Amino acid sequence: MKKQLIFTAIFVISFSVDSFARQIKVDSDRLHRTLMTLSTYGKNAAGGSDRVAFSKYDIEAREYVKNLMKTAGLEVSIDFAGNIIGRKPGKNAAFKPIAFGSHIDEVPNGGDYDGPVGSMAAIEVVRTLAEKDLQTDHPLEVIIFANEEGGVIGSRAIAGNLSQEALQVVSNSGLTQYEGIATLGGNPDRISEVKRNQGDLAAYLELHIEQGGILDSENLDIGVVEGIVAIEWWEFTFQGKANHAGTTPMDQRKDPMLPAARFVLAVNEIVNSYEGRQVGTVGKIQALPGAGNVIPGEVKVTVELRDLSSEKIWKIYSELEVRGQQLASESQTSLDIRHIEVASKPAMADPMIRGIIKSEAEKLGLSTKGLPSGAGHDAQEMARICPMGMIFIPSKEGISHAPTEFSSKEDIANGANVLLQTILELDKKLK
Amino acid sequence: MKKQLIFTAIFVISFSVDSFARQIKVDSDRLHRTLMTLSTYGKNAAGGSDRVAFSKYDIEAREYVKNLMKTAGLEVSIDFAGNIIGRKPGKNAAFKPIAFGSHIDEVPNGGDYDGPVGSMAAIEVVRTLAEKDLQTDHPLEVIIFANEEGGVIGSRAIAGNLSQEALQVVSNSGLTQYEGIATLGGNPDRISEVKRNQGDLAAYLELHIEQGGILDSENLDIGVVEGIVAIEWWEFTFQGKANHAGTTPMDQRKDPMLPAARFVLAVNEIVNSYEGRQVGTVGKIQALPGAGNVIPGEVKVTVELRDLSSEKIWKIYSELEVRGQQLASESQTSLDIRHIEVASKPAMADPMIRGIIKSEAEKLGLSTKGLPSGAGHDAQEMARICPMGMIFIPSKEGISHAPTEFSSKEDIANGANVLLQTILELDKKLK
Repeated sequence: MKKQLIFTAIFVISFSVDSFARQIKVDSDRLHRTLMTLSTYGKNAAGGSDRVAFSKYDIEAREYVKNLMKTAGLEVSIDFAGNIIGRKPGKNAAFKPIAFGSHIDEVPNGGDYDGPVGSMAAIEVVRTLAEKDLQTDHPLEVIIFANEEGGVIGSRAIAGNLSQEALQVVSNSGLTQYEGIATLGGNPDRISEVKRNQGDLAAYLELHIEQGGILDSENLDIGVVEGIVAIEWWEFTFQGKANHAGTTPMDQRKDPMLPAARFVLAVNEIVNSYEGRQVGTVGKIQALPGAGNVIPGEVKVTVELRDLSSEKIWKIYSELEVRGQQLASESQTSLDIRHIEVASKPAMADPMIRGIIKSEAEKLGLSTKGLPSGAGHDAQEMARICPMGMIFIPSKEGISHAPTEFSSKEDIANGANVLLQTILELDKKLK
Repeated sequence: MKKQLIFTAIFVISFSVDSFARQIKVDSDRLHRTLMTLSTYGKNAAGGSDRVAFSKYDIEAREYVKNLMKTAGLEVSIDFAGNIIGRKPGKNAAFKPIAFGSHIDEVPNGGDYDGPVGSMAAIEVVRTLAEKDLQTDHPLEVIIFANEEGGVIGSRAIAGNLSQEALQVVSNSGLTQYEGIATLGGNPDRISEVKRNQGDLAAYLELHIEQGGILDSENLDIGVVEGIVAIEWWEFTFQGKANHAGTTPMDQRKDPMLPAARFVLAVNEIVNSYEGRQVGTVGKIQALPGAGNVIPGEVKVTVELRDLSSEKIWKIYSELEVRGQQLASESQTSLDIRHIEVASKPAMADPMIRGIIKSEAEKLGLSTKGLPSGAGHDAQEMARICPMGMIFIPSKEGISHAPTEFSSKEDIANGANVLLQTILELDKKLK
């Protein structure tokens, strides 16, 4: 009888904490203020952000962010990869941490939202929980990753996917990754020690702007990311015969520009012939020698395909290959194809986490849509070592990586609240 | 009676000189030897010629050529534009000179025939006439033009078509035209004095390799040039919206690559839809920003049209403009067109000279074909001030401006003999 009473009491307390937790919201004004303050680090005359990784703006902004994290009650440290790690203990020391975060570095002349939204929201979520005296069972870990825009460097280090060669690549700051990581207070010589193993983290969550126009154009609040697409590149080179544009009659030409132009149209046609949300792009085309008075000897066409299914990507590629060869032989030119590896495997979001994001958003009265992430994120690396989930909010007109990148204060708060509730629900579900 | 006898005697002598002249031929071996010797000046490891205008190879080769001209009995001088002028008096000092020649400078890594064939043949013709003690009624003038490949500089000076601005342009040698002309022994400050007026020359003739594949593929000996084509350039810029190749769904793109590709095909289709020998070329295409992972914001397509009729060129252009606008509006992109002037007027060969070239070639048992010159030549400038004629010989496989440029010894001798006979016939006809 006594035992039963205790159980009931615990249940009542537990229930009320849960009900209370369901009502709490982040401080939308404060969140937006931290975001706008962060945007002042590296703001250029064109209105864009020059806060590239390892720059003085990045370093100054990181100090601001570290202080914010401390204010939120996090224990802050820098790992050997230069990631800022903020830890908060859980009630149960045996549980693995639920991690969440993003990045604060930008592409050159970038915007104020790509990375900062997820970073500031992560800190705001912890601050809100602290203010409400809510302690989760799982430890929480906020990660502000180093140099996301320069090749998801910090998250690759944590996933154990960063080679010594990659550290020698020169970043947008002019420093190599190696030098840059040292500048952030990391230790590139000990970078292998930051690797986490499968099971070290309970989950990883990331809030991010969509960077595409789906949510904005369909007037939706929250994107539930199904996964981060695989990316493959190929360079199709049509080879004909360079010749004098004045002295070579039309019927004596072997002009590779013609099959190349037909091929550009074929890429679009073939990619669109499949059901689904795959994308195919010709972003680069080059005629050689490339003079107005010379029939080109060769024309190079770069094809990029992205989809959540590698199988579909390669199925489309095989159609492109057949069509390319056909166009070459019809025009008495030849075709050479070179494959360039970019991100050969999709990173799928965890189905349970996707379900939680969707239902928590709906509980908040927000509309949702499942969609792939066409862009790469730190989350793709984290998915190598733990269950991953991503929350998207609308990007105005789908613009990103540009000074005109924009997400509304309300959408940002919505995203942060979905992140908060997802953490709380995961904290319960992962018990 | 006595008077009649004298007349008869003169008639007989005149008749026999003419019959004799009809039988003389250039020394094919010697002509070929001078051509091969000339080719040694500036021969590079790849087998090409680096004898660009104003280079040390050009200067050394000019010394060789000047000596050859003196050996042929010409009085040699350098005009203020750096042209090598070789004069031979005629029987009638009141007649204006019949001029002929070409150039000896080459494009970087060029061939051994473009220019040298006409230059060496011109000198060989004079040498042959001297050896046979044949003096024409007209003075003869051999002109080896300065820097043909760098913009028909020497002939533009003679035609009074060379601006002071043009002299400041840097040539392939690294020197400006101004500096280069001084290096050749010219005087760029007095260049306007080399201008010849209409009536100063009786005619200008030039033997040249075809640089195209018509004569070679049709197995013909001599091309009777109808004129040198007009050339117009346009840059068609299709403007869409640059965006992220991963996050922008296929149906939300304004990708200018698609109308640009369709336009490339339209250029070919429209140019081919006209009767005649006009040519249209897309030699250059550029997507901006030009990264494999960015949907281009704009694609620039360079269109070159060449024909003997400016009217036809502009008729084709107007079709291209309509089609381009249509393709742009169908794809929600816009089109910007910029015209670039190259050579806005065709230079027509003199009909009488064309007739003489054709009939003299036929008398020599050579097959002929009338054809336009798709490439520019010094003759186009000379046509501004006197009746002009051009003789083409076959280029193997139509190749020019390359180390593999080739014309056979026999074809070169044929061309030189047609030049010789055309001069003799003109000498009679122009009386």
